[in-house]
Amino acid sequence: MNDTIKSIATIMKDLDGILLFPHTNMDGDALGSCSALCLALRSLGKKAYVMINEPVPKNLDFLECGCTTFDDSVLDDVQLSLMIDCNGMNRITGREKAWARGRLKGCFDHHATKAKEIRYDFARIEPKSAAVGEIVYNVIRALGVEISLDIANCIFTAITTDTGNFQHSNTTSRSHEIAGHLYKIEGFNSKVISALIYDRRSKEALKMESEVISNLDFYADGKLAVGKVTQKLLKENGCTLDEADGIIQKMMSIDGVEGACLFKETETNVRASLRGRTYANMAAAAARFGGGGHVLAAGCTFFMPLEEAEKTLIPVLIDTVNAQGTK
Amino acid sequence: MNDTIKSIATIMKDLDGILLFPHTNMDGDALGSCSALCLALRSLGKKAYVMINEPVPKNLDFLECGCTTFDDSVLDDVQLSLMIDCNGMNRITGREKAWARGRLKGCFDHHATKAKEIRYDFARIEPKSAAVGEIVYNVIRALGVEISLDIANCIFTAITTDTGNFQHSNTTSRSHEIAGHLYKIEGFNSKVISALIYDRRSKEALKMESEVISNLDFYADGKLAVGKVTQKLLKENGCTLDEADGIIQKMMSIDGVEGACLFKETETNVRASLRGRTYANMAAAAARFGGGGHVLAAGCTFFMPLEEAEKTLIPVLIDTVNAQGTK
Repeated sequence: MNDTIKSIATIMKDLDGILLFPHTNMDGDALGSCSALCLALRSLGKKAYVMINEPVPKNLDFLECGCTTFDDSVLDDVQLSLMIDCNGMNRITGREKAWARGRLKGCFDHHATKAKEIRYDFARIEPKSAAVGEIVYNVIRALGVEISLDIANCIFTAITTDTGNFQHSNTTSRSHEIAGHLYKIEGFNSKVISALIYDRRSKEALKMESEVISNLDFYADGKLAVGKVTQKLLKENGCTLDEADGIIQKMMSIDGVEGACLFKETETNVRASLRGRTYANMAAAAARFGGGGHVLAAGCTFFMPLEEAEKTLIPVLIDTVNAQGTK
Repeated sequence: MNDTIKSIATIMKDLDGILLFPHTNMDGDALGSCSALCLALRSLGKKAYVMINEPVPKNLDFLECGCTTFDDSVLDDVQLSLMIDCNGMNRITGREKAWARGRLKGCFDHHATKAKEIRYDFARIEPKSAAVGEIVYNVIRALGVEISLDIANCIFTAITTDTGNFQHSNTTSRSHEIAGHLYKIEGFNSKVISALIYDRRSKEALKMESEVISNLDFYADGKLAVGKVTQKLLKENGCTLDEADGIIQKMMSIDGVEGACLFKETETNVRASLRGRTYANMAAAAARFGGGGHVLAAGCTFFMPLEEAEKTLIPVLIDTVNAQGTK
C-alpha cells in the first residue's frame, strides 16, 4: 500500500487545509515530524495545524513552533487529515471528530503493524526507517521546500530521539545522511537542541530516579534487574510517573543484566515495563498477563497491590532470562 | 603545519614498523583511532602496534583487536612513531623511550593547542574534526584500504564517544557522513558497539552514582550544582574513581544548572571537575587554583581536606555562575 514520495508530494501540493495527527503520548518523532511538515506546508502558503488533545511534554515544547492546536474547528475546510508516526484510530483517541473532518486521509508511519479500519487515500509506511522524521524529510524535499532552521531542529529531534541518539539498531546510513544534511543549515547546532531535549530535568526527578536505582533488586544471578516506582516515592519527590521514563534504560546499562522490569504504581493499577537485551522474550512474558509489545521491549498491567504484582510477575521473568536462546 | 591526507598516505605507504601512541588516560577516540589505523596498516602487510603503558578501560576492551602492546621493543626497526589524539610528550608519559625509537615522527590530532617540543615529519591537526577517528578514516581511505568490520567498529567508537553520541556541538556534517558510510559495512551494528561501550556498568558503580546524585548541593538559586565522590563512598561500594566519570554530565542535565562541580577525593588530594553550560567561565575559575581546561569544561586539584576545598572553591563558583555573559 506504499505510495511513492513523489506521488504523495504531487497530491499534497494541490491540497489546502491540512490537519496533522501525532500519536497519543506524543514523542520527539511524532511531534517533530508533524511540526516539520506543518512548517513546510505553511511555507507553501497552506493552512496547516498539528492537532493535539494533550499538553506537549515539557522537554519537547520547542517543537511546537506555533503549529499545535487543541481546537478541532481551527480550519473551516479540512482537505486532508494525516496520521504521523501511527496508523490506527486507537492511536489518536479523543481526536476522532477532527480526524473525520479530512476529506482525504493520509498516513506516514514506520510501525509495521497496520490498522485495517482506515482506508487511506495515500500512505507511506516504512518499517526500516528509524524515524518518521526521515519520511517527512523526504516529503518536504519532494514538496520543493527549503529546510529552514526550525524544520531542521524538528527533524533532528525526530531522528535523534527515535534512534536513541544514533545508538539503537534501527539507525541506518540514511539516518546519518539526513542528520548530516541538517548541519549544513545556517545556525543549526545539535548541542542546543540536545540540551533542550535532555538537559532540563528537575532535581526532584533525578533524585527519584537515583532512589529507584539505589534500591534495585537482582535475581537469576544478576540477569534480571527489578525496580519500583511507588506512589510514595513519587509523592515524596513531587514527581509524576512520566518522569520515571528513563530509569529502565539505566537498568539495562548494568553489566550482566539480560532483562529488566520496572514496576510503576499508579493510583489504580501497577504497570510493568519490561526490557530484554539479546534473547529474553519479554513480549511473551507480558502476554501471559494480557500485555504485549516487542520481543525486547514490552509491558503489562496488574490490577492488584504492588507486592502481589511482584510475586506474580518476577518468577515468570526469572524463567524468561534463564531461557537463553529461545526467542 | 598541516600536511595533506594524500601526502601523508604517500609517506606511510613506504614505511614499515609503525608504533601508534594514544594519549594517557586513553579514551574511545584515542584507542579507536589507533586500532583502526593499526588494522589498516596490517592489512597492507606492515608491522604495526598500538603502544600503551596502562590497561585498556574495560568498556573499550573490544577496541584492542590484537593491536596493543606494552613492550617497547616489540619491533626491531621502528620507521615511524605516530601520536594519535595528542601532540605533546606530556600526553605519552612513560612511553618516551618507545616514541624515540621512531625514525620519523608523525601526528594526527584535533586539539588546537600545539606542543612545540617535537618536530614532526608530518602532522595533520584538525581542530574542527569532532574526533581524530574522522582524520584516520580519511587516511585509511587514502591508503586504499577497504574498511573492515573491525575498523568500522573502531571508527564508530571514536566518533560516537567524542561527539557525545552525536549531540555535542563539535559534531559536524562530516561526522554523520562517515558514520553513515560505516553502516554500509557488512555486519555493522551500532547497537552492538554501543552496548559494549555503555551497557557494561557495574551495579556498584550505578549505586555509587545514584548516591552522589541523591546528595547534591545547590547554590546560587540552583544555578550551581555540587557533588562529592568521597573515599568512603568509593570504599563502601567497592568502586574506583574512574567509575565516577559520568556523574558530572548527569548534574548538567538538571534544569537551571549553569555550572557543576564534582569533587573527587583521592588518597592524597581532592580533584574538582568543573562544567559550564553556556556562559560560566570554568577555565578562569580553575585557573585561580592552578588548574585549567576549556571555558565550559575545566578542573583543578586541592591538597587539603575535602571540606576545606569546598569552602575554598564554592564561593568562586557561585560568582562564576552569577556572572552572566562575562565569558
